[in-house]
Amino acid sequence: MRSAAIITIGDELLYGSVIDTNAAYIGQRMTAAGIEPVCSMTVGDEGGRIGQALDMVCRQADVVLVTGGLGPTHDDVTKTVIAEAIGQDLVFHPDILDTVEAMFTQRGMVMPESNRIQAYMPRHAEVLDNPVGTAPGFLVRHHGAAVFVMPGVPREMKKMLNEQVLPRLKAHGAGRVILHRWIRTTGIGESSLSQIIGRVIEEAEDVKIASLPQETGVNLRLTAEGGSEEEARRRIGAVESKLVARAGEHIYGMDDDTLEEVVGRLLRETGATVAVAESCTGGLVASRMTDVPGSSDYLLEGVVSYSNAAKMARLEVPAGTIERHGAVSAETAAAMAQGVRRTSGATYGLSTTGVAGPGGGTPEKPVGLVYLGLATAAGVETRKLMLGPDRHVNKTRSALAALNLLRQALTRVAGGTENPFMGN
Amino acid sequence: MRSAAIITIGDELLYGSVIDTNAAYIGQRMTAAGIEPVCSMTVGDEGGRIGQALDMVCRQADVVLVTGGLGPTHDDVTKTVIAEAIGQDLVFHPDILDTVEAMFTQRGMVMPESNRIQAYMPRHAEVLDNPVGTAPGFLVRHHGAAVFVMPGVPREMKKMLNEQVLPRLKAHGAGRVILHRWIRTTGIGESSLSQIIGRVIEEAEDVKIASLPQETGVNLRLTAEGGSEEEARRRIGAVESKLVARAGEHIYGMDDDTLEEVVGRLLRETGATVAVAESCTGGLVASRMTDVPGSSDYLLEGVVSYSNAAKMARLEVPAGTIERHGAVSAETAAAMAQGVRRTSGATYGLSTTGVAGPGGGTPEKPVGLVYLGLATAAGVETRKLMLGPDRHVNKTRSALAALNLLRQALTRVAGGTENPFMGN
Repeated sequence: MRSAAIITIGDELLYGSVIDTNAAYIGQRMTAAGIEPVCSMTVGDEGGRIGQALDMVCRQADVVLVTGGLGPTHDDVTKTVIAEAIGQDLVFHPDILDTVEAMFTQRGMVMPESNRIQAYMPRHAEVLDNPVGTAPGFLVRHHGAAVFVMPGVPREMKKMLNEQVLPRLKAHGAGRVILHRWIRTTGIGESSLSQIIGRVIEEAEDVKIASLPQETGVNLRLTAEGGSEEEARRRIGAVESKLVARAGEHIYGMDDDTLEEVVGRLLRETGATVAVAESCTGGLVASRMTDVPGSSDYLLEGVVSYSNAAKMARLEVPAGTIERHGAVSAETAAAMAQGVRRTSGATYGLSTTGVAGPGGGTPEKPVGLVYLGLATAAGVETRKLMLGPDRHVNKTRSALAALNLLRQALTRVAGGTENPFMGN
Repeated sequence: MRSAAIITIGDELLYGSVIDTNAAYIGQRMTAAGIEPVCSMTVGDEGGRIGQALDMVCRQADVVLVTGGLGPTHDDVTKTVIAEAIGQDLVFHPDILDTVEAMFTQRGMVMPESNRIQAYMPRHAEVLDNPVGTAPGFLVRHHGAAVFVMPGVPREMKKMLNEQVLPRLKAHGAGRVILHRWIRTTGIGESSLSQIIGRVIEEAEDVKIASLPQETGVNLRLTAEGGSEEEARRRIGAVESKLVARAGEHIYGMDDDTLEEVVGRLLRETGATVAVAESCTGGLVASRMTDVPGSSDYLLEGVVSYSNAAKMARLEVPAGTIERHGAVSAETAAAMAQGVRRTSGATYGLSTTGVAGPGGGTPEKPVGLVYLGLATAAGVETRKLMLGPDRHVNKTRSALAALNLLRQALTRVAGGTENPFMGN
């Protein structure tokens, strides 16, 4: 199996001002491509250290992935350091300059002189396009290793890695195949999930199952190796069916699926629309839903009814309901969901109300108490959540639980079962 | 100044299953203590690589911080590898075993036999207590460097670093002080900003200025060293005033400030309230504002008016305005801002409308075209943005630009100037 080393460059990473997420992403993608990461290094924006790191890792790995320090400012030294290390001068590429200038023009701006530097490349470098930023990457060889140099901006790096680097790596040397499959769950804790699927994990001899709790829920990563893609895929498929059979109701998607994409797909399939009324989530449910391209087709509108006045005026929540039960109550959640459904004309009305914290809690209504409501033509249902003291976590978990409530309802309509993955 | 190197150990870090937050935390604490991080390495749970990494960094740094691989399982090899590297055998410490056993007893459990390994330490190691976990750390010397070995669990590592490692580092050689100051800007690109402040950067001899483009805008990090905190602070202060004088209008905050916090603070100070009407940002403006605790005091409500029907019904946007100018137009943005202000009774009405993409663009209204509106008692102003093809970036940049538009208006009201940092 080929080996990979990662170098991430930037004072901000070394001083801990910014957490390095690039190394983890590259590690994942390399592992998925059957290339084993053997070490990862972070150095600051300092020529000597970058050169030293490069020298060291190029002797240890077949592939070296470098990120950072390709910008137009004085502390971006990666290109000159690497050119020096491999003994090549920097040559000017007029076509790169044209592309960079066009990017500025498109936004109605004039390219600053400092960006000219981005059109210079080590003489024998292969240029890696950057369609989403002004810093192109490049590929050179050093001590026998293929060195891919990419920008540090995560979005630009990811695109370049997936569209420029990985295809080149796949074109060379086919090895054993390692396949991953992600199974995404939400609304269940790690230990409860592991009790449900413990037996499957024990019995899965040729598939490794890792459980990774993340903000959106617990994800399971299945890993299998094989002489061919088919072989690895078959192994994963066998274990996947067992997991789905046991934990299907908690599974909302696979691989890169997000909960909001799955909900959007189900709304589209069933020809339904939705409107949301948010109190404690403050717009997060609508914002997540609108992260999905084309969501304007099914999300009619959203109301962030933080104040009681807004709950009454925009959503027609009866004043008496808020007075008798409080703004944070199952009754108000139900009235909000029904109100936003009625006033918008959507198929579904979805609502959240709760105490996000850190302040505002009482003994009867503590911080972390949240109610969700879902109104349909048939009526309205509510859910109660008891979350923790952290505002950010409470917003996120409430928004996900609301989307999951809608997903479960849509799944019943779409397939007559809560488990759309059965038998796939 | 003394230098530090960091080694984090674990397959899960290298393969990217877990993002390494320990390295950033250690980097921060070292920098704050006046010890300069020079490199950080991640290696897997493999003896050879760990030994190699240790050998390399111990020749480069005065202090080496190692985390991970101290647990009781078969893949925890850190201790044996380090003992071998420094040529010391592992000796049994009965007092450590007593402590570890007591921890299990306290939780009503019997200590598994595998945990005995945690009572062994390299012969001349100084033991570092771990009051919150079963794996004690230790301190040894290698190639002249002080090597601190800590558990990988972030909570345990942090406690050990702060209570065991840093006091020992401070006891030896009182270091120089390094101070950082962050200056946060938004709405201006990195190269334009660097043109404005280029002279200040060139002339700032004893303060290092780094420019870091992030999702929220370009941040500047000022770093100064000094014999005392006062000296470092004075140096930073001098350069900071120059930067504020030149780029003040683009600066929204310092250090850990977020744009939504600054906006919230200004609303509170001026006793004002706001309501938002969002189309292309789909709830993101409201969601960011409600990330701030206590935001219910000034955010009256939000409307996500994705559909034209919602723009008319909820916001009283005249049908004629949408027909004549389109949903994405300065006129509609203005009507939305005025409508949400009027219907909510807020001091300010803030609106966004645009083509977020990737679909939905036309030659006249391309993807990335966004209009913002801000309505006050005095009237309404609009802004036009030309962003790029990426939906996520467009949502984020539009939301930030909207918040920044409100910030600028509030700053004029609060201080009579757009530059609240002048003269601080």
